[in-house]
Amino acid sequence: MNDKLYGRGATDDKGPVCAWIHAIEAYQQLGLEIPVNLKFVFEAMEESGSLGLDMLLKSKKKWLLSTDFVCISDNYWLGTERPCLTYGLRGICTFFVEIEGTSKDLHSGIYGGTVFEPMNDLVHIMGNLVDCNGNILIPGIYDDVEPMTEEEREMYKNIKFNIDKFREEVGAIKLLHTKKEKLLQHRWRFPSLSLHGIEGAFSESGQKTVIPRKVIGKFSIRVVPNQQPETVETLVVQYVNKLFKRWGSPNKMRCQMDSGTPAWVDDPSSDHYKAAAQATKIVYKQEPDMIREGGSIPVTLTLQELTGKSVLLLPVGTGKIFLFKNNFNYIKSNSQPGDDGAHSQNEKINVRNYIEGTKLLAAYLHEVSKIPK
Amino acid sequence: MNDKLYGRGATDDKGPVCAWIHAIEAYQQLGLEIPVNLKFVFEAMEESGSLGLDMLLKSKKKWLLSTDFVCISDNYWLGTERPCLTYGLRGICTFFVEIEGTSKDLHSGIYGGTVFEPMNDLVHIMGNLVDCNGNILIPGIYDDVEPMTEEEREMYKNIKFNIDKFREEVGAIKLLHTKKEKLLQHRWRFPSLSLHGIEGAFSESGQKTVIPRKVIGKFSIRVVPNQQPETVETLVVQYVNKLFKRWGSPNKMRCQMDSGTPAWVDDPSSDHYKAAAQATKIVYKQEPDMIREGGSIPVTLTLQELTGKSVLLLPVGTGKIFLFKNNFNYIKSNSQPGDDGAHSQNEKINVRNYIEGTKLLAAYLHEVSKIPK
Repeated sequence: MNDKLYGRGATDDKGPVCAWIHAIEAYQQLGLEIPVNLKFVFEAMEESGSLGLDMLLKSKKKWLLSTDFVCISDNYWLGTERPCLTYGLRGICTFFVEIEGTSKDLHSGIYGGTVFEPMNDLVHIMGNLVDCNGNILIPGIYDDVEPMTEEEREMYKNIKFNIDKFREEVGAIKLLHTKKEKLLQHRWRFPSLSLHGIEGAFSESGQKTVIPRKVIGKFSIRVVPNQQPETVETLVVQYVNKLFKRWGSPNKMRCQMDSGTPAWVDDPSSDHYKAAAQATKIVYKQEPDMIREGGSIPVTLTLQELTGKSVLLLPVGTGKIFLFKNNFNYIKSNSQPGDDGAHSQNEKINVRNYIEGTKLLAAYLHEVSKIPK
Repeated sequence: MNDKLYGRGATDDKGPVCAWIHAIEAYQQLGLEIPVNLKFVFEAMEESGSLGLDMLLKSKKKWLLSTDFVCISDNYWLGTERPCLTYGLRGICTFFVEIEGTSKDLHSGIYGGTVFEPMNDLVHIMGNLVDCNGNILIPGIYDDVEPMTEEEREMYKNIKFNIDKFREEVGAIKLLHTKKEKLLQHRWRFPSLSLHGIEGAFSESGQKTVIPRKVIGKFSIRVVPNQQPETVETLVVQYVNKLFKRWGSPNKMRCQMDSGTPAWVDDPSSDHYKAAAQATKIVYKQEPDMIREGGSIPVTLTLQELTGKSVLLLPVGTGKIFLFKNNFNYIKSNSQPGDDGAHSQNEKINVRNYIEGTKLLAAYLHEVSKIPK
């Protein structure tokens, strides 16, 4: 069971697509009727922004409306041992803060001490968005966050997750949270704010005695249910405006949301999820982890909105770790947790996941067919 | 008198070098004895870091020791009308603060909310170095700054300087100081701190949802008499260490001085400066501005140290505005104040400055020869 199938797309996403087709073939070769009606959406441009997908799906709204459940296989287990069902993804609101001071970049020898320097204004703002422990300092930002229920709290307890391995994986001395439950909650169901960088300032190695004329700070907030991007935008822009006013610089400041995608979450206690959990138990002989993920897959929301039905992420492979190499190139490390290496060198899928995953999808169709209308 | 001579180096620094040679030629053609003994140092690599110049001068220390006065013509008038003598330059201490958090850049969707983000630590430190009005927040940093004397205060009153033109020139809405005297003092004789940028963070246009693993903040302090770079280094490093400890991040932080050049200042009331002022009055029929500059010319200090004598900057041309275009390319604008355009398109020297400057240097030699031994 330790054999691996190597190849680009082995786990992301040719392998899972083939698993779906094999599941259908299995029904056909056994002479069994496929237990439910199926509608497939195959997307071949997911790695290039899915241009046109939303437009296509919206134009097929009538066709989609007659579906009862939606299932997507484009994510991964949390680790390598235990399967999972994924019921939520965070959204993202990206922001920039632009400060303009002078009409030209200036030499700090000649001008240092005479002008209000935009970099100084910008780090003041960026330095007041989040505290050392990751708490967002924008008033009201946590107000709409869905309160945690007892059932939810229980689910986190059951998730198999090695926090020490995770820490080693990212190479951090210490993590923001030392308890498994808290760490996963802050990954998946609480908002976080990250400062990405500054455009317009000196960014190379060495020193340059420049006073940049205009600098643009970039940051984003991962949003969760029930945070609305519009509300988040208002809170952020109001706060930054207030901060800047109190700071007192005469420079020109502009804070704006670049893009806002809301979070997606489904009901993990629904019949749909119960059916998928039952299918998992039949194939893998164990309960699946009930998880969310921290990133966003916009089509999940689109399908939820267009069908108005339950959407489930039912993964086949064993995890990818998103690490940035450059703008359009995700890389991952080779170690636990989750080791399929999607987007990376030597992408693979375990034979176990490929075969059991095919069985899982077949069993899922069977279990779903038993849900009363 | 409004004619201009265009050409690369017209004002920086072939023009002034030729003016010196013409001054000697004038004495020779008039059959007059040159009134003082002369030693010349011609430097042709000043725009490329003057590699080897310090070493050469140190090896000629004995030869230099017998000089009585040092005069350098490699700077500019403050404006276009009134000549000046320059008696001081600020020094510079460049610093970096490096924060390392994880072993790889991370995706903010997957990791946001789990790790102590280095960018957050860095903007906290950079945001606590200087206040909105340019006051440096590092305790003790102003302790060694030479107190202002009454004579010095008087000198600033006499300087011809249009603060509104200066503000328009840099394109700022408002300057840090609204009085001419204060503005010039903060340009020339008080320290300033500038934040130049961050290496390792996202610096391009658009958005990138990255949590940078290691970021390096760059800043520098323009130092003045009597600030010693070693003392400045100690104060900065101690303060940043304290800031970071109080902040409480477990990430690795390192703050270090990259390079330190002390300020240079000479006595503008010395016989040497009086002689140069007298020469200026003879040629230009007006008192020179007694000014400093905000940048640094390291060889000035070297010559002061090696000779132990008074050093004077006696400019010929009418100003260059240092504006940064990129790392090794200074540009300037075409408007007042100071419009020779050194390092820029259409560099020129006014015929007036070239001819009167030659006379000035000849007169300077004459006046200097009258100083009693």
